[in-house]
Amino acid sequence: MHSLIMVAHGSRRATSNTEVQALTDQLRARLSDRFEYIQCGFLEFAEPSISAALDAAVRAGGTEIAVLPYFLARGAHISEDIPRVILAKQLQYPAVTIELKPHIGASPGMLELLARAV
Amino acid sequence: MHSLIMVAHGSRRATSNTEVQALTDQLRARLSDRFEYIQCGFLEFAEPSISAALDAAVRAGGTEIAVLPYFLARGAHISEDIPRVILAKQLQYPAVTIELKPHIGASPGMLELLARAV
Repeated sequence: MHSLIMVAHGSRRATSNTEVQALTDQLRARLSDRFEYIQCGFLEFAEPSISAALDAAVRAGGTEIAVLPYFLARGAHISEDIPRVILAKQLQYPAVTIELKPHIGASPGMLELLARAV
Repeated sequence: MHSLIMVAHGSRRATSNTEVQALTDQLRARLSDRFEYIQCGFLEFAEPSISAALDAAVRAGGTEIAVLPYFLARGAHISEDIPRVILAKQLQYPAVTIELKPHIGASPGMLELLARAV
């Protein structure tokens, strides 16, 4: 089963986390032909954690799980923190394929999105 | 003169700030028909600050300055910190129009960007 976990930083502000949840809901509707399961996970300040989100995806039957970091810049979270969680979960679930995608800020479409936003 | 300041959070990692600078350079080339001046400014950890970036834009002759926050989620930075800087600069430069745009995460195109990234 193809699953997608969108990972976000998480904020002390509940409204910010709700925004991520709403975007995840929209993504679930938009990509229902490609992923049977789409949820989000947070690095800090919000639930579920990335680790808990991956556990839930596996429990739901996920065998190929894509992880999409909703981050703009390549900081320590992208270079170290998120890969560390993914590695631990990959070792925990050897029968599951977990693929870490590039962070959204590295997407080739970002320039056009910015250009259209002004 | 139409100017654009892309504001980013800034990171302790120089490579992350370089990434923002590179995207600003691409945006300058992409939007050269609409803006005569495009630079970036950082909230913390990197130079120039948003305040210094706005000062420089005004010194360069900017009379209409758009500020585009390169942020994904509506946290305290978007709701309070950046508007506070913009307000102070607007009071400092009453002859200049400074327009704060919605953060890029609120852009209607974000869903498509995410959908294409996976």
